[in-house]
Amino acid sequence: MRGQSGEDGDGSATPVNRVATGPDITMEELQLAVRNHSMPLEALRYDVTPIGLHYLLTHFDIPEVDPAAWRLDVGGAVRKPVAFALDDLKAMPKVSAQVTLECAGNGRAHFSPRPISQPWLFEAVGNAEWTGTPLRLLLEAAGPRASAVEVVFTGLDRGVQGGIEQQYERSLPVAEARMGEALVAYEMNGRPLSPQHGFPLRLVIPGWYGMAHVKWLRSITLMDKPFRGYQQEPAYHMATSEDDPGIPVTRMLPRSLMIPPGIPDFMSRIRYVRPGLCILEGRAWSGHGPIRQVQVSTDGGASWAEAELGAAVSEFGWRSWRYTWQAEAGDHELCCRAEDAAGGVQPLATTWNAQGLCNNAVQRVKVAVGTEVVPVQLAAGSRPAEASSNRP
Amino acid sequence: MRGQSGEDGDGSATPVNRVATGPDITMEELQLAVRNHSMPLEALRYDVTPIGLHYLLTHFDIPEVDPAAWRLDVGGAVRKPVAFALDDLKAMPKVSAQVTLECAGNGRAHFSPRPISQPWLFEAVGNAEWTGTPLRLLLEAAGPRASAVEVVFTGLDRGVQGGIEQQYERSLPVAEARMGEALVAYEMNGRPLSPQHGFPLRLVIPGWYGMAHVKWLRSITLMDKPFRGYQQEPAYHMATSEDDPGIPVTRMLPRSLMIPPGIPDFMSRIRYVRPGLCILEGRAWSGHGPIRQVQVSTDGGASWAEAELGAAVSEFGWRSWRYTWQAEAGDHELCCRAEDAAGGVQPLATTWNAQGLCNNAVQRVKVAVGTEVVPVQLAAGSRPAEASSNRP
Repeated sequence: MRGQSGEDGDGSATPVNRVATGPDITMEELQLAVRNHSMPLEALRYDVTPIGLHYLLTHFDIPEVDPAAWRLDVGGAVRKPVAFALDDLKAMPKVSAQVTLECAGNGRAHFSPRPISQPWLFEAVGNAEWTGTPLRLLLEAAGPRASAVEVVFTGLDRGVQGGIEQQYERSLPVAEARMGEALVAYEMNGRPLSPQHGFPLRLVIPGWYGMAHVKWLRSITLMDKPFRGYQQEPAYHMATSEDDPGIPVTRMLPRSLMIPPGIPDFMSRIRYVRPGLCILEGRAWSGHGPIRQVQVSTDGGASWAEAELGAAVSEFGWRSWRYTWQAEAGDHELCCRAEDAAGGVQPLATTWNAQGLCNNAVQRVKVAVGTEVVPVQLAAGSRPAEASSNRP
Repeated sequence: MRGQSGEDGDGSATPVNRVATGPDITMEELQLAVRNHSMPLEALRYDVTPIGLHYLLTHFDIPEVDPAAWRLDVGGAVRKPVAFALDDLKAMPKVSAQVTLECAGNGRAHFSPRPISQPWLFEAVGNAEWTGTPLRLLLEAAGPRASAVEVVFTGLDRGVQGGIEQQYERSLPVAEARMGEALVAYEMNGRPLSPQHGFPLRLVIPGWYGMAHVKWLRSITLMDKPFRGYQQEPAYHMATSEDDPGIPVTRMLPRSLMIPPGIPDFMSRIRYVRPGLCILEGRAWSGHGPIRQVQVSTDGGASWAEAELGAAVSEFGWRSWRYTWQAEAGDHELCCRAEDAAGGVQPLATTWNAQGLCNNAVQRVKVAVGTEVVPVQLAAGSRPAEASSNRP
């Protein structure tokens, strides 16, 4: 089942990359935005994100899986193909890891022009405790042949994207897959995976963006040549033009987020804060190494001060930070930026790319400090009112 | 803390009702859409909605609550004010009820012009098992005075809406609050409430739209006169003009939803189905009485056939339905509509109202039946592509 027609007749029914001409969100994007969800930023207060608050992106539908009939097949370029039942995996050595997971498209809706896909703002992230079997043990059980170069992970979720019917599939180089930290997880936060997070089994590759952590894992296939499935290529490539093959997305760039202080306005989400001492808190993470520093700006990025880092509690989980702000009456724009041990720093603005990936530009939080509620300002892109009511 | 200026200088800084002039979603609405989430329609397959898939709307922020310090105060026009610790409630008689809960704004983004607020499509619903203490026992413990006419429920969530700083508050007539079925719930699906669903305690009023089920419940106050808080009035009133005070929203209108058959296209969410027998399944509910009938249309509402109802398993939970469709090649629009025992039937289109409430118009699911993927059609409101790629 493959697209039969397309704009250029090559069999691709849908263009891979489309961008919006206007600032507003199309009905098509809204269909994704109401299904999927980010982590409300106040949930940064939890070391481990409670189930239901962790960000969630489902490309197709959440599949229904009978755990008794389900098997994980490990095959392809191996000496001995193996099928694992869920109980087989649970009988193997178990590991747990706190892992921060972020969607590669986080920040997409801040790009202009805006690439058409799930329109994330800042919050497509979460930090969970994953428990399961080290991936390398499954590979060792099957015995990859010397010729194997890539490992393909196939999920049970099926649909059409770019005009191609597909199961969700992603690959890793064999060396990456054999590294100690990758696991196949059957528990999240100490409980069996929920349907939406990949029940009964998902891949977890600490440090990588979310697209690598294949959910509803059904098979692991060793391949003698590079994998070219849709989600591997052309998807998840940072390209700036049609002629540019683009750079594949892998590990998470450094990012920090803050809990918006004070209280919100329902619609504008502008924050109201009383004058005086105001504790700003948040989390920071990177897939390229430990967080070395977080800085805070209370003037929209014009000047920066260093935040205090909390203890590093896990290798692949986020790190807390804290900054004490003397809030003075008036309007302010708060920002934070992280730097990792590899020297990566969040920019004020990132380079545009056609799929809207890896936008780790600093978070901006509008705050009105005062003893009274100030007239609510409209967020960028909102429309003037056609009708208004001033009932008491 | 109250607005100091406004368009008419009456102290209301924000108009209550605004509508969008264009079909597309503003950045302001998107901020809500990425935080809040509906229930992906494939989750209609579960009798009880798993945590994390149940719809969620948070007006302000999810508050952080220390359960040891938390108390529920019952006071106002009572003979003996009482404060309950969580353990006090757990020591009282316990009830459990499966309750379908739907946001009063479900369907808002289908109105034209579109009222500006959380832009729900069809799926702001869920069905959970709530466990807690009958509300009437708490009222009896405090002893409402004969003069009491309303009961006000105050949550710990705080913010600004309509230019007014507020805690989320809603009221019920005393007679409604004393009815047997209302409860204050400390468990959802057999586990302590999650932070986002109201930990440690929320109100559950079976049959009512979501706005009545106050989360993070902090106090219950008996009043000698009608309550006029923002969320009671002007909010959640169906009005068609500025001069119309509107009708308050109470119980859920009948609605049915189907699991979209086949597989989806990632962006358009159009469904691809193979020709032949196709089982259509879904759920139906109403706050006005049991579901009496569900009908299905496979031609966009031109003709209707009766679906088979599943057994009624709970008084306030949704009811399953099923219909066997002989899918023939071509494009189809599937619809379903519910009728309740009170005679209420879902309409093809509802009357517009300024806050976008109670839009229970029939669901419409676009389906392409064929053996090949047909060229993907763009959903209404989507924009033409500016850039396209046809990489293999």
